[in-house]
Amino acid sequence: MVKVTLIGTSGLLPVPDRALSAALLECGGHSVLFDCGEGTQTAARRTGCSLMKTDIIALTHYHGDHIFGLPGLMQTMFSMERSKPLYITGPEGLRNVMRPMLELTGELPFDVIPVEINGGLRPADIIKGFPPEARITPFETKHRVKSCGYVFTLDRAGRFDPQSAKSLGIPMELWGRLQRGETVEADGRRFSPEQVTGKARRGIKIVFTGDTAPCDSLTDAAQDADLLIADATYAEDEHLPLASERGHMTFSQAAQCAAQAGVRELWLTHYSQRIKEPEMYIPVVRNIFPGTVCGRDGMCRVINFGE
Amino acid sequence: MVKVTLIGTSGLLPVPDRALSAALLECGGHSVLFDCGEGTQTAARRTGCSLMKTDIIALTHYHGDHIFGLPGLMQTMFSMERSKPLYITGPEGLRNVMRPMLELTGELPFDVIPVEINGGLRPADIIKGFPPEARITPFETKHRVKSCGYVFTLDRAGRFDPQSAKSLGIPMELWGRLQRGETVEADGRRFSPEQVTGKARRGIKIVFTGDTAPCDSLTDAAQDADLLIADATYAEDEHLPLASERGHMTFSQAAQCAAQAGVRELWLTHYSQRIKEPEMYIPVVRNIFPGTVCGRDGMCRVINFGE
Repeated sequence: MVKVTLIGTSGLLPVPDRALSAALLECGGHSVLFDCGEGTQTAARRTGCSLMKTDIIALTHYHGDHIFGLPGLMQTMFSMERSKPLYITGPEGLRNVMRPMLELTGELPFDVIPVEINGGLRPADIIKGFPPEARITPFETKHRVKSCGYVFTLDRAGRFDPQSAKSLGIPMELWGRLQRGETVEADGRRFSPEQVTGKARRGIKIVFTGDTAPCDSLTDAAQDADLLIADATYAEDEHLPLASERGHMTFSQAAQCAAQAGVRELWLTHYSQRIKEPEMYIPVVRNIFPGTVCGRDGMCRVINFGE
Repeated sequence: MVKVTLIGTSGLLPVPDRALSAALLECGGHSVLFDCGEGTQTAARRTGCSLMKTDIIALTHYHGDHIFGLPGLMQTMFSMERSKPLYITGPEGLRNVMRPMLELTGELPFDVIPVEINGGLRPADIIKGFPPEARITPFETKHRVKSCGYVFTLDRAGRFDPQSAKSLGIPMELWGRLQRGETVEADGRRFSPEQVTGKARRGIKIVFTGDTAPCDSLTDAAQDADLLIADATYAEDEHLPLASERGHMTFSQAAQCAAQAGVRELWLTHYSQRIKEPEMYIPVVRNIFPGTVCGRDGMCRVINFGE
C-alpha cells in the first residue's frame, strides 16, 4: 500500500490558499517527501500529515520555491528530538545547497546525509525497515536549471504456487521466506523464489515530475504509471510560449504527456498564482486525457496492489 | 500616523492557525518589518499587507523562527521586480547570517545592505522620503543568544506660534519651512524653529521586544510607550522556570513589564504552541496591567499624534 498526499500545489510564489508544491509518499511505515518549499511544514500539519518521521527528502531542483522550507523543517525535527538520520537526495549540486542550509540551522542532533542520486536509490539499502521492493529512480527533466523527476515503484512478486512447492518437496515452514523473495535450503537442496512463483505482477508506480517542460525522458519514465503528479504551471494554451521559455507545462501539455505514457491518473499541480480556479479548465483537458484531476492542497490517495 | 500590523503571533514553531512572530510598521509611505520567520510572506498576504515595498527588515536575533522567511521573501521581491535596496538590521553576527541566506537566493537584482545597528538608526539618513522624525533604536534584551529589541519613535515638534513669528517679523511664506524644522533667513537675519515653536509634544513610541526574559533594559526602553509588543511565550506562571531557562516571558511577566514602564497598551505575542486560546488567561493578566491585549495574526492598529 502506498499513500500519497499533496501538501502544496502552488508554483513559484506561496499564496494564502495554496502552499508551495510538495508531496508526501508513505509506504510500509516510512515516508519520502518530494520537495520542500517555504511553509511546507505548516502546510503538512494542515493536511494532517506529520513530516517529523520523514526518512528521505527528494528534491527535484534547487529553486527557492522547492527548497526554502528545509532549514525550518530540520530545526523543527530538532525541537521534536529527532535522532535518526535524514537523507536528502537531489540532482547535481546538492552539496552546494546543503552547506548554506546547515550553516543557517546550526548544529543538529541528527545526521543529514546528502545523496546525489544518479543511478537510482533503493531506500531499503539505507533505511532499516523500508520495504525492499521499493525503488526511487530519478529521471532527467527539462527546466532552466539542472533538474530531475522521480519514479517511485513498489514491485510485486508473482503469485506463490503451493502446488509447485509441494511437488518440489519444500517443507511448508520455508514457504514464507520464499514468498518474501529469499532463497532457502532444505535437505541439502537450494530453492529459489522463481521456482515456486509465477511471473512478477503489476506493482505500484508513482511519478513526480518536479518542474519541467514536456520531454521524452518524462514520457518514458511515466509509462504505465498508476499516478503522475505533474507540473501544470499554466492553465491556458496561450501561455505555451511562456511555459516553454520557463521550463514548465500547461495543463494541456501535462495531459498529453499522461495520454502518451498511458498512465492511469494524472494530478495537476504547481499552479501559477494567476490560476484562481483550476477546475475551470478541466473540461478541455479531459478531452486530451480523461483521467486528469486538479490537484489541491491536502488531496490524498491510497493505492493498493491489484487495483 | 503609524500603522502596526501583527503578521504572526506564534513562537518557536509555525502552527496552522498562527504564523511565526513578525510585525509590520508603516509610516509616511514606508515600512519596517520586524523579524521574518518561515511563512511570513504568506501570512502577510493573509493580513492584506504587502511586504514588497518593505524598506528595512529589523531582526531581533538569529533563531530560525525569526529569520527563515528571508530567502523566500527576497526571491519574491526579485519576482516582483524590486530594484530599490533592502536594508537589513540586526544585532552582532548579521553578516554571518546574511552570507548563507544570499548563497541560497543567488544573485538578486537589488542591493541587500546589512546594517549591524548599535547606536540606533535614523531611517531618513538612508531612505529617501522616510519621515526625518522617525528613529529605530535597538536595546539589549536577555535571550539565549545575542539579541535586541527595537524602539520605534516618531517625534513631534512643539506647536508653531504665529504670534511669535509675526512679532519677529518673519515673512509668512517662510513659516512652513520653520514648521518642518528648518532654519530660514529673511532680510539678512536667521530664524530657527525654536524661536517660534513651543516645547516638543508627545510623539509616538512603539516597542518590539523580540524574544527576551524580563530585564531592566527592556523596562527602560519601554518607558511611556504607546504600544509594547512583547514576548509572551508561556501563559501560566507555572512555566516561569522554563521561561527563565529559555529566555522568554510569561503573560504575567510581560504585563508586569508593561505596568512598570507605564505603557499605554500591551500586545502579547510569540505564543508557545501549547497555548490554544490565549484569551483564556487574560482576566488574570489584566489584574496586573489592564491594557493587555492578546495579539492575534492580522491584528492592526493606527496610532495618531495626540491620542
